[in-house]
Amino acid sequence: MFENSQENRTNLSELGEFGLIDHLTANFKPKLKSTIKAIGDDAAVLDFDNKHTVVSTDLLVEGVHFDLAYMPLKHLGYKAVMVNLSDIYAMNATATQITVSIAVSNRFPVEALEELYSGIELAAKIYNVDVVGGDTTSSTSGLLISVTALGMAEADDIVYRNGAQPNDLLVVTGDLGAAYMGLQVLEREKEVFKANPNAQPDLDQYTYLIERQLKPEARKDIPPLLKELEVKPTSMIDISDGLSSEIIHLCKNSKVGANLFEEKIPLDPALISVCEEFEIDSTMVTLSGGEDYELLFTISQNDYDKIKGNPNLTVIGHITEESEGMHLITRANQKLPLIARGWNSMNKED
Amino acid sequence: MFENSQENRTNLSELGEFGLIDHLTANFKPKLKSTIKAIGDDAAVLDFDNKHTVVSTDLLVEGVHFDLAYMPLKHLGYKAVMVNLSDIYAMNATATQITVSIAVSNRFPVEALEELYSGIELAAKIYNVDVVGGDTTSSTSGLLISVTALGMAEADDIVYRNGAQPNDLLVVTGDLGAAYMGLQVLEREKEVFKANPNAQPDLDQYTYLIERQLKPEARKDIPPLLKELEVKPTSMIDISDGLSSEIIHLCKNSKVGANLFEEKIPLDPALISVCEEFEIDSTMVTLSGGEDYELLFTISQNDYDKIKGNPNLTVIGHITEESEGMHLITRANQKLPLIARGWNSMNKED
Repeated sequence: MFENSQENRTNLSELGEFGLIDHLTANFKPKLKSTIKAIGDDAAVLDFDNKHTVVSTDLLVEGVHFDLAYMPLKHLGYKAVMVNLSDIYAMNATATQITVSIAVSNRFPVEALEELYSGIELAAKIYNVDVVGGDTTSSTSGLLISVTALGMAEADDIVYRNGAQPNDLLVVTGDLGAAYMGLQVLEREKEVFKANPNAQPDLDQYTYLIERQLKPEARKDIPPLLKELEVKPTSMIDISDGLSSEIIHLCKNSKVGANLFEEKIPLDPALISVCEEFEIDSTMVTLSGGEDYELLFTISQNDYDKIKGNPNLTVIGHITEESEGMHLITRANQKLPLIARGWNSMNKED
Repeated sequence: MFENSQENRTNLSELGEFGLIDHLTANFKPKLKSTIKAIGDDAAVLDFDNKHTVVSTDLLVEGVHFDLAYMPLKHLGYKAVMVNLSDIYAMNATATQITVSIAVSNRFPVEALEELYSGIELAAKIYNVDVVGGDTTSSTSGLLISVTALGMAEADDIVYRNGAQPNDLLVVTGDLGAAYMGLQVLEREKEVFKANPNAQPDLDQYTYLIERQLKPEARKDIPPLLKELEVKPTSMIDISDGLSSEIIHLCKNSKVGANLFEEKIPLDPALISVCEEFEIDSTMVTLSGGEDYELLFTISQNDYDKIKGNPNLTVIGHITEESEGMHLITRANQKLPLIARGWNSMNKED
């Protein structure tokens, strides 16, 4: 779907700052009724009528959040948009506009930025958001992308992180852990390539995992699905950092505890098989891996019948009193405290 | 007013990402009615009733937009906010909320970021905006700040860049060129300091210029002033890149030409004297210097009596038909084409 051709090279300096912005955003035409004025003035102008506006922002830094050795620029542009839209959907809102700013060193030719913006454009098209502003500047090293997303919702529909109640059910969309294991596969291939640049890797069996890493999709479908099912979550958050720390965020904000059942965590078969290959525990991958961009939410037990059997939604646990703490109940029925830890700290312990 | 103490050093890693955000934003309490939910969820939630929302974003990169050798971090935080608010005021709107994201290398201790955020906090307080979100991440080198500002206005009050008409008057707020010459003074002092670290510079005579560079103020006062004077500009832009390129922006967007009168450009006496000292032409400084964050706008001639004699506003020229082009009329009555050029290209010609 994505191809990355860098055969032509135009130096950034040939266009200049204003020329570059005009050039990269020439295809970005506003489509939404709420976008009164998009790119081209001091600020964009938006009209949300009586609805509430939601706004979220994220920075992606080369060498920290992505590695251009295996992340094609078009995918990077797409993913940068997804990361932000995911936050808007996690408010149970509709994403409407984004601004995209980049800082970029001279080592990138104009064609590379065109690739980046083609990914942004594709994401904006598929997710029906307008690109309404941004800033393009030089950096002393590397590439940095800052995206701010705006959305809207009826005041009554917005779901915060702080509404979970004891006995609520803990629900997750999709399946977890695949994006992290996709990254592990890509990092292994990078090492193989370094050792032997002529090696032809066969990555077919890892397609799903790699796609979850390189081209994640935000859950635009979930807010309308919940509306259709007549379910309003009591709290919601998106899963960017791993299930464990997101459950902790929800619980701390809602002043409750939780029990998470290991056997309920939804896993794709491809994840299970790659975890066996890498000799890594799949539960740990879902708890600490991150970048799944699925949604985690809580609902009243009374709503259980409305979501039961929906293939997008899995009940993975329930909310408890705050004093009971936050635990993982293992398949062996052990009760382990949930700890928020990224892979960096985990790896130290390995 | 600002002091920068870096005697205590706490490593960023001691707080962790979540701890750092909580720590830096602990004082940021929302004050505006339109801020329903600020920091602490997937997104901020804003309520603008029936007004239009305006949104603008800017990136500031160390080594490109600022040099920490003479820019104290508190000033940098303040200025990063000003740069964005200026865009909101240039829409004739009221600034209401900002998000602030930073990418920062490990060489900065927590105390340095506290300084940065104290400047952001001060700006938010003085300009009456709420800080409603942001992202804090590590960078592989240097410091980068991304600010997105939101504002609101009645639909009828918003002023775009594209409404200037032939015979309109070209008006500027405040005085121009001081920020650029403040930078020249600071750069000269940096060289003196490198040669002799014990030199005690006497910068008293440059206070105004240096303050314009290090602590610019966005023209929050101008939209309400225009309302009070019952003047709605036909077009407006903020002066971030020098008068020349901003006039060209207005003219190109409005499909008109302009005559700018050299003798009318407002100059502070301190600017005139420093330009003599540096043997640099003050008109060129105002045309190409930038970072003044004053507002440039056009009004109908019928409104002239309403602004006449106002000390904040100076008529510097008038709009013509597009076919007449854009010109500077010099004191010697020469007619020179206006060219958008930054100091980089100018210096090459010196």
